[in-house]
Amino acid sequence: SEEFSFTDHSHRRFNPLNDSWVLCSPHRAKRPWLGQVEEASTEQRPEYDPQCFLCPGNTRATGAQNPNYPSTYVFPNDYAAVHKSQPDCPASALAQVAGANASDELFRVESTRGQCSVVCFSPRHDLTLPELSLDEICEVVRTWQSIYTELSKDPGVGYVQLFENKGAMMGCSNPHPHGQVWALSDVPSEPKKEMESLKKFNKKHASNSDPHACLLCSYTKAEEANAAAGESTSRVVLQNDSFMAIVPFWAVWPFETMIVAKSHVSNINELDALQIRHLAEIMQGLTCRYDNMFQCSFPYSMGIHQSPTANHPDADCCHLHLHFYPPLLRNATVRKFLVGFEMMAEPQRDLTAEQAASRLRALSPIHYKQNTA
Amino acid sequence: SEEFSFTDHSHRRFNPLNDSWVLCSPHRAKRPWLGQVEEASTEQRPEYDPQCFLCPGNTRATGAQNPNYPSTYVFPNDYAAVHKSQPDCPASALAQVAGANASDELFRVESTRGQCSVVCFSPRHDLTLPELSLDEICEVVRTWQSIYTELSKDPGVGYVQLFENKGAMMGCSNPHPHGQVWALSDVPSEPKKEMESLKKFNKKHASNSDPHACLLCSYTKAEEANAAAGESTSRVVLQNDSFMAIVPFWAVWPFETMIVAKSHVSNINELDALQIRHLAEIMQGLTCRYDNMFQCSFPYSMGIHQSPTANHPDADCCHLHLHFYPPLLRNATVRKFLVGFEMMAEPQRDLTAEQAASRLRALSPIHYKQNTA
Ligand SMILES: O=P(O)(O)O[C@H]1O[C@H](CO)[C@@H](O)[C@H](O)[C@H]1O
Ligand SMILES: O=P(O)(O)O[C@H]1O[C@H](CO)[C@@H](O)[C@H](O)[C@H]1O
Repeated sequence: SEEFSFTDHSHRRFNPLNDSWVLCSPHRAKRPWLGQVEEASTEQRPEYDPQCFLCPGNTRATGAQNPNYPSTYVFPNDYAAVHKSQPDCPASALAQVAGANASDELFRVESTRGQCSVVCFSPRHDLTLPELSLDEICEVVRTWQSIYTELSKDPGVGYVQLFENKGAMMGCSNPHPHGQVWALSDVPSEPKKEMESLKKFNKKHASNSDPHACLLCSYTKAEEANAAAGESTSRVVLQNDSFMAIVPFWAVWPFETMIVAKSHVSNINELDALQIRHLAEIMQGLTCRYDNMFQCSFPYSMGIHQSPTANHPDADCCHLHLHFYPPLLRNATVRKFLVGFEMMAEPQRDLTAEQAASRLRALSPIHYKQNTA
Repeated sequence: SEEFSFTDHSHRRFNPLNDSWVLCSPHRAKRPWLGQVEEASTEQRPEYDPQCFLCPGNTRATGAQNPNYPSTYVFPNDYAAVHKSQPDCPASALAQVAGANASDELFRVESTRGQCSVVCFSPRHDLTLPELSLDEICEVVRTWQSIYTELSKDPGVGYVQLFENKGAMMGCSNPHPHGQVWALSDVPSEPKKEMESLKKFNKKHASNSDPHACLLCSYTKAEEANAAAGESTSRVVLQNDSFMAIVPFWAVWPFETMIVAKSHVSNINELDALQIRHLAEIMQGLTCRYDNMFQCSFPYSMGIHQSPTANHPDADCCHLHLHFYPPLLRNATVRKFLVGFEMMAEPQRDLTAEQAASRLRALSPIHYKQNTA
């Protein structure tokens, strides 16, 4: 009789980091696609665009002028989602929206403060992260460090969310390569869920000989061994002494990856010069492979999870990692839609994590544009 | 000094149904949009398309032939994500993907079975849900009832997820108006989370005088009172004796709504003829307003949450409701992207639930195409 095979049969995998399940239907990639086809991101952009709000020397939408910056450039988001100061929200204000009959339990609301900035990766309008030199990517990491350091001094900031929306398909509203920082008074939902899982794991496994037992330390160790054991159990895309890029066992997006520190580093500020270089190397190798997959500027949303600022009691449990959520599935124009079933019931994917990792590993780490240049 | 205002200041709202937060930045809708612009869904389709896999009499991708169906038509999904039978997955099989060093805690996986079907709403290739007659929508509801009844008899089915992806923007791969059914052996993540919240609320509030205390019964009652109290606290879009369409206090998508039964109905099979008609009326009124908002076929993903089948012990806690998640934000071509910050940190919205409800209420319940016909 037929045996169970993870590449042929439906199964669910569990994400211990945020306590959720994903449905995996590996045979589903075979169905024909008659749905939406997107524009491939293959346009050539000029080095400098006089109309761009982010290019050096240009005037922004709000009238502020950018300096002639030579490397990275950080400025306050002109349309921030949260502000440093706004009036307090007394409990009595709730009646404005919830009405007199509102019970606290069903109509919970709280005021929130924070600040938002934009981080241009370089003055060049045409160079995305994978097209920058290693030194330039190191500079991006050092800029993230300064941002984290600065915001850590502000008692009004509880968490610093660094992220990048790359490509129009991922809602990026300006093509000049940039990331964002949204710093909030409270730890937002996702990092909070992860922190709870990390804490729970530590409580369960900490012992005298291993007081710092950590879910992600154990996970990277297990995946290093799995990768060494052979192709069929390897989810590692690339690694060096400090970091590992991996398609997590519980990946949701088709080519989702996670860059994880191999040692227990809580936040980006703990990285020394060598570790910065190692992180930049892995970011470069991973994003070049992404672009090479379909010979296009591979869209994704990327975000850094690390310890909250402001002396959070669980900060030590945190383990620095970067999530990459890229939407493309079949080629440069056909994406995965996480829609009806995924929104209403459970995320679903159409290939296994092992298949995705194997395809990423097989690609060249040298950017295709450099190859043909 | 300035006072806190929910239409000007950032705040977070809590969703007690699935235990999550949403960040609300009502001033953010003012920023200019330079990002992706989609194709508006305004094309005229023929009544019958000889190339369509779903039209009556046509041959499907796999060779099966559709009958000349006169109203709704249900058939097995030719590319099902889950199957009724597949080999068992013994614990030993895990080593295939997780490797020898895998601990159960970090590499949890389980085999899953089920079945998937497609539900054509009508033989007409050109008529979406809002364009059907009330009788035809009643027939769709009755078809959902038969599906639920049939699948309830199968001990291998634990939960029946009914949903619709409407429009190419929501990943719909065939324009012939249809919904889907994915029936699974286990209760999937989202309905499970909701069931836990409903159960917790009941445990906390049940008393001798109110043994059936229910979160959604209390919520609809509170929102009925809020709506009666005036425009500024009203999130109700439309209602009749049996159902209410509402922008939930904790909505994430710009014009997200929920159709909720006003009395404690656990699943679609408990609806009598009058309640079926009432549900059809609300579905029609809501989806016509959706199309009228930007004079286009308004895309969304819709899903029905109700009690699991197979005598689930918590079935009585469930309260029938339909979620509508539409992506459009500014007009027929500019959508909301739930990307970087939303994926990595917390969902974020750009207008308040009250503003969205007020705009939906102001629209005509008569479909714009009918108006101009
Ligand atoms: O089943 P369809 O319409 O081919 O596919 C669509 O709905 C499914 C269920 O929500 C998703 O998994 C697919 O990504 C989406 O394209
Ligand atoms: O800030 P941007 O690039 O204008 O906007 C983009 O990123 C934000 C943060 O993820 C999202 O809320 C927006 O929907 C998206 O379009």
